[in-house]
Amino acid sequence: MILRYDRIGMEIPPPSDPDPAGAAAVQELMGGRFGEMSTFMNYTFQSFNFRGRQGARPFYDLVANIAAEEFGHVELVATAINTMLTGASAESNGTVRSPLVTKNPLEGVKGVGNPQHFIAAGQGALPQDSNGRPWNGDYVFASGDLVEDLTHNFFLETGARNNKLKVYEMVDHPAARALTGYLLVRGGVHQIAYARALENLTGADLMKLFPTPRIPTDKIPECRPHIDRGDHLRLYRFSPGDYQELAAVFNGPHPETGEELVVIEEAPEGVPPRDLPPQPAVFAPDYAPEEVAEIAKKLRQAAGLPKEPTGLVADLKAQTKRSTKKATARSRS
Amino acid sequence: MILRYDRIGMEIPPPSDPDPAGAAAVQELMGGRFGEMSTFMNYTFQSFNFRGRQGARPFYDLVANIAAEEFGHVELVATAINTMLTGASAESNGTVRSPLVTKNPLEGVKGVGNPQHFIAAGQGALPQDSNGRPWNGDYVFASGDLVEDLTHNFFLETGARNNKLKVYEMVDHPAARALTGYLLVRGGVHQIAYARALENLTGADLMKLFPTPRIPTDKIPECRPHIDRGDHLRLYRFSPGDYQELAAVFNGPHPETGEELVVIEEAPEGVPPRDLPPQPAVFAPDYAPEEVAEIAKKLRQAAGLPKEPTGLVADLKAQTKRSTKKATARSRS
Amino acid sequence: MILRYDRIGMEIPPPSDPDPAGAAAVQELMGGRFGEMSTFMNYTFQSFNFRGRQGARPFYDLVANIAAEEFGHVELVATAINTMLTGASAESNGTVRSPLVTKNPLEGVKGVGNPQHFIAAGQGALPQDSNGRPWNGDYVFASGDLVEDLTHNFFLETGARNNKLKVYEMVDHPAARALTGYLLVRGGVHQIAYARALENLTGADLMKLFPTPRIPTDKIPECRPHIDRGDHLRLYRFSPGDYQELAAVFNGPHPETGEELVVIEEAPEGVPPRDLPPQPAVFAPDYAPEEVAEIAKKLRQAAGLPKEPTGLVADLKAQTKRSTKKATARSRS
Amino acid sequence: MILRYDRIGMEIPPPSDPDPAGAAAVQELMGGRFGEMSTFMNYTFQSFNFRGRQGARPFYDLVANIAAEEFGHVELVATAINTMLTGASAESNGTVRSPLVTKNPLEGVKGVGNPQHFIAAGQGALPQDSNGRPWNGDYVFASGDLVEDLTHNFFLETGARNNKLKVYEMVDHPAARALTGYLLVRGGVHQIAYARALENLTGADLMKLFPTPRIPTDKIPECRPHIDRGDHLRLYRFSPGDYQELAAVFNGPHPETGEELVVIEEAPEGVPPRDLPPQPAVFAPDYAPEEVAEIAKKLRQAAGLPKEPTGLVADLKAQTKRSTKKATARSRS
Amino acid sequence: MILRYDRIGMEIPPPSDPDPAGAAAVQELMGGRFGEMSTFMNYTFQSFNFRGRQGARPFYDLVANIAAEEFGHVELVATAINTMLTGASAESNGTVRSPLVTKNPLEGVKGVGNPQHFIAAGQGALPQDSNGRPWNGDYVFASGDLVEDLTHNFFLETGARNNKLKVYEMVDHPAARALTGYLLVRGGVHQIAYARALENLTGADLMKLFPTPRIPTDKIPECRPHIDRGDHLRLYRFSPGDYQELAAVFNGPHPETGEELVVIEEAPEGVPPRDLPPQPAVFAPDYAPEEVAEIAKKLRQAAGLPKEPTGLVADLKAQTKRSTKKATARSRS
Amino acid sequence: MILRYDRIGMEIPPPSDPDPAGAAAVQELMGGRFGEMSTFMNYTFQSFNFRGRQGARPFYDLVANIAAEEFGHVELVATAINTMLTGASAESNGTVRSPLVTKNPLEGVKGVGNPQHFIAAGQGALPQDSNGRPWNGDYVFASGDLVEDLTHNFFLETGARNNKLKVYEMVDHPAARALTGYLLVRGGVHQIAYARALENLTGADLMKLFPTPRIPTDKIPECRPHIDRGDHLRLYRFSPGDYQELAAVFNGPHPETGEELVVIEEAPEGVPPRDLPPQPAVFAPDYAPEEVAEIAKKLRQAAGLPKEPTGLVADLKAQTKRSTKKATARSRS
Repeated sequence: MILRYDRIGMEIPPPSDPDPAGAAAVQELMGGRFGEMSTFMNYTFQSFNFRGRQGARPFYDLVANIAAEEFGHVELVATAINTMLTGASAESNGTVRSPLVTKNPLEGVKGVGNPQHFIAAGQGALPQDSNGRPWNGDYVFASGDLVEDLTHNFFLETGARNNKLKVYEMVDHPAARALTGYLLVRGGVHQIAYARALENLTGADLMKLFPTPRIPTDKIPECRPHIDRGDHLRLYRFSPGDYQELAAVFNGPHPETGEELVVIEEAPEGVPPRDLPPQPAVFAPDYAPEEVAEIAKKLRQAAGLPKEPTGLVADLKAQTKRSTKKATARSRS
Repeated sequence: MILRYDRIGMEIPPPSDPDPAGAAAVQELMGGRFGEMSTFMNYTFQSFNFRGRQGARPFYDLVANIAAEEFGHVELVATAINTMLTGASAESNGTVRSPLVTKNPLEGVKGVGNPQHFIAAGQGALPQDSNGRPWNGDYVFASGDLVEDLTHNFFLETGARNNKLKVYEMVDHPAARALTGYLLVRGGVHQIAYARALENLTGADLMKLFPTPRIPTDKIPECRPHIDRGDHLRLYRFSPGDYQELAAVFNGPHPETGEELVVIEEAPEGVPPRDLPPQPAVFAPDYAPEEVAEIAKKLRQAAGLPKEPTGLVADLKAQTKRSTKKATARSRS
Repeated sequence: MILRYDRIGMEIPPPSDPDPAGAAAVQELMGGRFGEMSTFMNYTFQSFNFRGRQGARPFYDLVANIAAEEFGHVELVATAINTMLTGASAESNGTVRSPLVTKNPLEGVKGVGNPQHFIAAGQGALPQDSNGRPWNGDYVFASGDLVEDLTHNFFLETGARNNKLKVYEMVDHPAARALTGYLLVRGGVHQIAYARALENLTGADLMKLFPTPRIPTDKIPECRPHIDRGDHLRLYRFSPGDYQELAAVFNGPHPETGEELVVIEEAPEGVPPRDLPPQPAVFAPDYAPEEVAEIAKKLRQAAGLPKEPTGLVADLKAQTKRSTKKATARSRS
Repeated sequence: MILRYDRIGMEIPPPSDPDPAGAAAVQELMGGRFGEMSTFMNYTFQSFNFRGRQGARPFYDLVANIAAEEFGHVELVATAINTMLTGASAESNGTVRSPLVTKNPLEGVKGVGNPQHFIAAGQGALPQDSNGRPWNGDYVFASGDLVEDLTHNFFLETGARNNKLKVYEMVDHPAARALTGYLLVRGGVHQIAYARALENLTGADLMKLFPTPRIPTDKIPECRPHIDRGDHLRLYRFSPGDYQELAAVFNGPHPETGEELVVIEEAPEGVPPRDLPPQPAVFAPDYAPEEVAEIAKKLRQAAGLPKEPTGLVADLKAQTKRSTKKATARSRS
Repeated sequence: MILRYDRIGMEIPPPSDPDPAGAAAVQELMGGRFGEMSTFMNYTFQSFNFRGRQGARPFYDLVANIAAEEFGHVELVATAINTMLTGASAESNGTVRSPLVTKNPLEGVKGVGNPQHFIAAGQGALPQDSNGRPWNGDYVFASGDLVEDLTHNFFLETGARNNKLKVYEMVDHPAARALTGYLLVRGGVHQIAYARALENLTGADLMKLFPTPRIPTDKIPECRPHIDRGDHLRLYRFSPGDYQELAAVFNGPHPETGEELVVIEEAPEGVPPRDLPPQPAVFAPDYAPEEVAEIAKKLRQAAGLPKEPTGLVADLKAQTKRSTKKATARSRS
Repeated sequence: MILRYDRIGMEIPPPSDPDPAGAAAVQELMGGRFGEMSTFMNYTFQSFNFRGRQGARPFYDLVANIAAEEFGHVELVATAINTMLTGASAESNGTVRSPLVTKNPLEGVKGVGNPQHFIAAGQGALPQDSNGRPWNGDYVFASGDLVEDLTHNFFLETGARNNKLKVYEMVDHPAARALTGYLLVRGGVHQIAYARALENLTGADLMKLFPTPRIPTDKIPECRPHIDRGDHLRLYRFSPGDYQELAAVFNGPHPETGEELVVIEEAPEGVPPRDLPPQPAVFAPDYAPEEVAEIAKKLRQAAGLPKEPTGLVADLKAQTKRSTKKATARSRS
C-alpha cells in the first residue's frame, strides 16, 4: 500500500508562455515506451510479483523502493505538461465567459500539439506518448527472473535517458528544461542501482557502460543544482519503515565521478505544488470555478474544517525559494 | 509523491490448488477497462491535473486520496493472481531441476488460462484483461471538468462493481473470493463518495441508484467480515498529513443501511504479504534461487545489515490470525 | 439517415443447448477483419464520402444500399451469439437469486469461450473478433477511388465468405448454422454486385472468379431454403424511396446458375425477433427483472399506452412458421 | 433492420475555404471515445443484446430508437469533414490533370491536419479520432444491466457534449460550427432521455446535473435555430412503425427551460445532401470522373432508368432555403 | 532462408534540404496498411504457409520470389526517410558537441513531422505509418486459399499504388520523388503478376482493371528512367537457384503497352548505399562517432582485416553515375 | 536487398499428431514481443538506419548479418506451427469433400488453440503472439545510438531465450521441441555476439551474465545435436560477398565452454522444406487442389519448363537423413 503526500519532487517553474507543441513532445516522457509510466509500472509489477523475496530481500527492496520514487516522476511530468499548457486557451474576462465572449478560445491551438490536450483533457497531461498513442501494458516486462528483470531495468533506464536528453534538446520551455534536468540526474541513479544489482549477482561490470548516451550529466546546466546537492549519489528510501536493505546493493563509487553512493533513509521533503489556475474555456475545473469554491467553502464549514483551504500550495507566480534541502543524512552510519 | 509500506490491504488466503483458468479471469479486475489499474490511473491523473484545487479542495482531496487507496487494490489483485498461479507448474525436487527432470513442467497449463502468465511472466500477474489484452491509457478519463470527472468516476465504480460480482460468480478459488469480497465493499465506499460529491455540487440524488448492480453486498459471505468491521462505512486517509478535507464530502448516511459514513484519519494497517515460493520451472526468481539467497546474505552482511532478511512476511501456509483491525477511530470527533 | 424496423432478416432458431465456445468463434463474423461490422462500416463510409455521386449514381446507390442491408447482418450475428449464450449461466429459481443460491453461477464457463461475454457483457455479443480483440477503424477502406473501393469490396466479400464457411465448419449449433447459411447466400449476392459494378466500369470479367472459396453454396443444406426462395438472385432496396438505380448495375445472369439477377424494390419483411430471456446471474437486464417490468407497466399506463407491451416478438421457444416470404416482385418489370 | 433515406439531418454549409487542420480536429467527434460512432454503436449493441425487452419495453424502445438517430449523426460528422476538406488539394484544370499539370497538388497539406485524409482517403472522413487513431470496439459498453447501461449512456452523452463544445471553440469553419451547434442540441435531448429513464427506474434526480459542462446551449448562436424550432424538446421516432413506447419515458419538463418534452411520431424529413465535387488529385471518385459519368449514363439507359440521375441533391454552392421543418406534431395527444 | 547483399535497388539522391514533415508522410509507404512492410510480410507469410506447393509450384514461386523483392522496397523506403531526415537537427562543430554548444539542436523540429523520428529513433525510419501508428500483423492476409490470397495481393498492390501516387503528390523532396517513381514501376509489375496468376487460375481478365488509379505511370517523370530501362516489364528472380517457374505465370503482353513481359533470371545488381552521416545531436551512432571509429579500426586490425573498412558505399554527396544496368537477359529464351 | 533460397535452417520433424493448442503457444515465438519477428525486424531496422556505418563497419556488419539469419528463424517458427496444425481439421476422402461429407470438419478445434489459425488462416502461422494479438512495430527499438541498440539487442536475446525455454517446457510436440532446441542454440550465439560487441565498445564484461535464464543449453537434449555440430560457436555469414568484418567482433572464447568462437564465411546449406499437404477443409490451397495442379502443369509446359515441378522438397513423411552438415570451415584461416 502507499501513503501519498502532497509534495512534488522538485520545483517546476511557474506558468509562463504556453507551449502546446512542446507539451505534446514532453508526453513521450509520460506515456512513451520509455516514459515514467513505464518505469513506474515495470518496477511496481516486478515488486508485486516477486517470488522468494525473503531470500532475495536486498533486490526486492531495491525494485520496490525505486517503483515508489517513479510515481513521483509521473507526477512531475504531469506537472510540467500542465504548466506548459496553462494559458494556451484564450482567457475569459469578468463574469461572462468563453465561448460566449471569445467565440473561439481554442482557435490558437488548432493544428498545434496534441489536440486531445484540449478536447479530451482540460489542458492537462494524458497517458499518451508524443504521437498521441496511449501507454499500454505491453511496455511492462516482469518475467520474474531476477537477472532478466534487472537487465531489462538497466536497458529501460538507458532508453529513458536517451528520450529525456532528446526532449531536452527539442523543448526549451523552462518547465520542460527543469523537468528533464532533474529526471536525468535521478534516472542516472536508477541506472547505477540496477547495474550494481547485476554486478552483485553475476559479476558483470556494467559500470563501464556509463554514461549511455554518452553525454556527461554534469555538462547540462539544468542538472547542475541537483548534482551540487548530491542527488546524483543518493537513493532515497520512500517508505516509513520498509525497504531497509537498499544499502546492501546501492553502494560503492559512482561510475563517472568516483564519489561514494549513499542511501538516504527518508524520502525527500519535496516542494508544495503550484495550484495551476482554472482554464474556463476547457471547463477545468468548471466554467464558473468560483461557484464550486463557494460550495466547497460551505461544505468545509459544515464539516468543522477551517474556513480557508487546508492544503499547502506554492506561490503560483514566483519561484519557490528553496526546493528540496541539501540532505546530509547518511545511510547506515 | 508516495511512501510505500510493505503491507497489503487484507489477507489473501495461502496458495492452495492452483487455478490458472481462474487467474486468467481475475485479470479482468487488473487490466480490464473497469479493473483496478483503471481506477488507480483515472483518479491519479485527475488529481495530477486538477486545476484550481484550492477553491475545490474537498473534492481534490477526495479524488487524490482515493487514488492512493487504489494502488493497494492493484496490489491485491496481483497478490490473488500470483497466489492462484502458485504451483501451476510441475515442481522441481532436490537439486536437479526442471526442465531437466520433469521434461515438460508446463505441460499441464498448455491451452489453459493466459499462456503469457507462464511464457512472459513468472507465473505472475500481468497488466492485461481477461482476454490477454494490455491495459491502455484510453481507459483514463480526466476532462478536468469536476462534475464530469465525478460522473465518470461514479460510472467507473459501477462498472467495476459489475465486473467484480461476475468474477466472484465465475471463480470460486479462495483467493479470488477473498479478493472480490473485499473489493466489493471498498468499491462500494468509493461509489458512495463520488455520489456524495456530485450531490454536494449539483443536488442530484444519486444515492437512489444504490446498489447497482442490484445485489446487496451484505448478502455475499465474503463481504461480511469487512462489513462487520465497518469497512463499508469508512474512507481512510492514505497520507501522513495531507488530504484533510475528506470529511467535508464524505459524510451522511450510507444509502443502503442508513449508518453514518466515517472518515478514518489514518491508513489501514494492513497485513504482511506472504512470500510466495519460487517457481523454478519459470525461473522465478531464478532457476536456482538458493544461490541468489546466498549472494543476498553476503551483501546484507557486508552492508552491516542483520544476518536474516529484515522484511516482514506472513506465514506462507497458515491463515493469518488477524487481518486489519476493527478500527474505532472516528473522523473529526 | 435511417429508419429502423424491429424485424430481423431471417429466423434464428430458439435457444437450445448453450454453446459459449461456439459463440466465441462466431464473434469472428461480428468484429473480425471480415466480419459484418466491417462490411457495414466500409460501405457506410464509402457512401458518406462518395464524391461526384450524381455522375456515378448507379454505383453510389449500390454501395449505399448494400450498407443498409449490412446493418441487418450485424444484427443477425448478434442475435445468433445471444441465442447461443442463453442459458450458459446457472439459472436462478423462485424468488431468491444468484449468486446467493447458486454460489457460482458462472463456474461452468470459466476457461470456456470469451470471458468478456460474461464479465463485460450480459451474455451478449461484443464488437470483437474470435480472439477477443475489438473491431477497429483500420478495417475500413474508403479511398474515394470508385474502382479501388469496388475492388476492395469484392475482396472483402471474398474474405467474408471464407470466414463464414469456416465458422460453419467449426460450429454446429443450430443458431450458428442458420446464421452462416443465410449470410453465405446474401454475401454471395453482394460479391456478384461488386463484380458486376467493376465489369461495367472496366470490362474485367470477375464473374469467372466465382465461387471463391470454391464450394458451391447450393451444396450447403442451410443455404438451400434461401436459394429455394430465390434470395441468391435478389438485391433488396432498403429504402422508402431512394437508391433507385440499383438495376443499372445489378442485372444479367448469376455466374454460377445462369438465372437472372433481380432487384426487389422493397426491403424484406423479416421476422420478429425473439425476446431472449433475462439472465439474472449476469444482471441482464437486472437481478430482479420483474421489478423493472412493474415500473415499465406503470410508465406505459401513465403515458396512455396499452397495458401490454406494444412490441412484436416471436415465440421464444417454437420455430416461427414462416420466415421471410417467397417474394415474386420483380425489379423494373 | 434499417431503411436508409438519402437525407441528412440538417444543412451543412457549402464548401468554402478548406480547413484540413480543422477537419482533423472534427475527427474527434467521429471516431473519438465520445464521438458519434461511439454513441451509435453503444446504443445499437445495447439494443441488439437487450434481454427481457418485453418487460422493459419503454426502455428498449428508447435505446433502440436513439441508436437510429445516431446513425444520422455519424453521417453529419462525415459530411462536415468532407465539406471542410473539399478544395484542399490543388485543382486540376481542363482535361489534363494532376499530378501531371500541377506537379504536387497535395503539397499544401504536407504537415497539415491528418495526412491519411489525403493518402488513405479521398479527402474524406475516416473512422479515427483527432490524433489519427482508429475507433475501436473497446468504446462500447453493453453490460446488459439496464441501470448500468443507462448510467453509462448518460455519462457518454456528457462526455460527448464536452467534446463538441471544445471542437466548437477550436474550429470556426462554418461547417464545423453548424455541425456542433446541431449536435449540442440533439445530444442534450439524449442526455435528458437517459436521465429520465434512470429517474423512472430508481428515483435518482439526475436532472439537477444539467447542463454539464455548464454552458447553457441557448447561449450558443449556432444552437439557436434548432432551439427556436423546438428541437431541444423533441425525441423523433426513427421507425415506420416500431418503438411506440418512447413517450412512457420521455416526458415531463426540460431541466433547463421547464418546457414540456415531446415525442415526434415520425423521423425528421432532413435535407438532401450536397453532391460534393470530385477531387481528381486524390482520384475521388476517379482521375477522370466524366468518364465514369458516361458509363453510368449508359447503364442507366440500358436499365430503362431516366436519362438524368434520379437522386436528389442540394445545390452545391447555395444555402438551402429551409432545413428541417418546424414540426408541430405532438406525441400521444 | 535469405542471403543479404549490401546494395539497394536504385539510387536515392544524396541528402539535401532536410524535410521532416515529408519524411513523416513517407512513413505511410513504410508502415501503413498498404506500405512495403505489408507487401513484404503478406507475401512472406503466404509463402511460408503455402500448402501443396509442388502441385502449385509456379504460383508458389511467384509469391515467394516477389516477397524477396519487397524486402528491398522496405529498405528503399527506409533509405529515403533517412535521407530526408539527415541534417534536420542542428549540427555540432569541432570537438564540443550538442546539446552543449547548440543548446537546443532539435528546436527546429518541435511540432514538425513525427516527433519519434527524433526522440525514439536517431533521425531514422520507424515501422509506423504517417500518423505515427505502428505497423501491425492485422495487415497480413494469408488465408491459404490460393485464389483468395492472389485476389488480396492484387488489391493490396492497387491500394499501394494509390498511396504511392498520393505521397508523390504531397512530397516533392528529391528522395521521396525518386522513391515513389521507382516503387510505382515495380509495384505495377507485381500488380500485373498477380492479375496474370488469377487469370491463369480462373480465366478472369483483370488486365482490364489497369491502371488503377487511372494515371499512366509513363506520364510521371520519375518513372521514366525505369520504364526506359524496361523495368516495367521485368520480374527479377531473387534467388541463387530457386523459384524457377516464374515464367509459367509471368508472361504475355503488358496490359498498358502491349510489350512482352520478361523474367530476368537474376536479381538486379543494385547500387551501393550511401553512408549517411552521423547525427550527433541524436547520438547516432554516438555522441562522439570518431571514437567508435577508432575502436573499430583496432578490432579490424586485430582480426587481420584490412585497415580500411571493407564495405562498399556510394559517394555521400554526388549522384551515382549508373544505377542498375539496362539488363538484356531474357527469361527462358 | 536479399536473395532467397528455398531451404530451411534445420529439419522440423514431419507432421504427426496435430497439436493446435501447442501451435497457439508457439505463436509467442513468432509474434510475441520477444518472438522472431521482433529479432528480425529490430536488427533489420537498425541496419537500415545505421549512420556512419563505414566508421563502425564491424558493428554494422554484425547487426546486418544477424538480421539475415533471423529471417530464417521466422521461417522455422512458421514451419513448426504449420506442421503442428497439419491434420487438425477432419480430412476429406475420395472426391467428395468437406464440408459436404464431414459436415463439421473443424468441430474438433472449437475452443482449442487460436481460432484464427483455422478461420483467418489455412491452418497456418499468423503474425500474432500466444494470446492472438498481432505483432506490432512498437516492438522495434532502433535508437541509432550504437551502444544502446546493442544493449537492447542483448536484452532482447535474453528475453527471447526465456520465452523459448518456457515454450519448450509447455509444448512437447516433436516439431516444437526440435524448433526450440535449435533456436536456443542459435539465440545463444547472438546473445554472445552482442555481448562481445558491447565489451569491445565499452569494456563491460557481459559474458558473466551467461547463461540467462540459468539453464545450460547443453543439458537440453534437443540442443545437443546442434552443439555437437559446433553450431553454438558459429556465426554464419549470410551474404554472397558482404559483411566481411564479422570476425572483428565475433571472436574469443565461448562464455560457458571456453571453446573458440568461429565465423563461417558462408550461409548454412539448410534442408529442403517439406511440402505440407493441402487441408481442403480450410481451402488451403484450394477445395480441390488437384485442379490447381492440373492448371499448373499446363502453364509449366507452355513455358517450356519440365513436366514435373522443379522445386526441391523433402520427403513428407520420413525424417531427412542429414540435416545441415557438420561444417569445418573456419573464419579467416
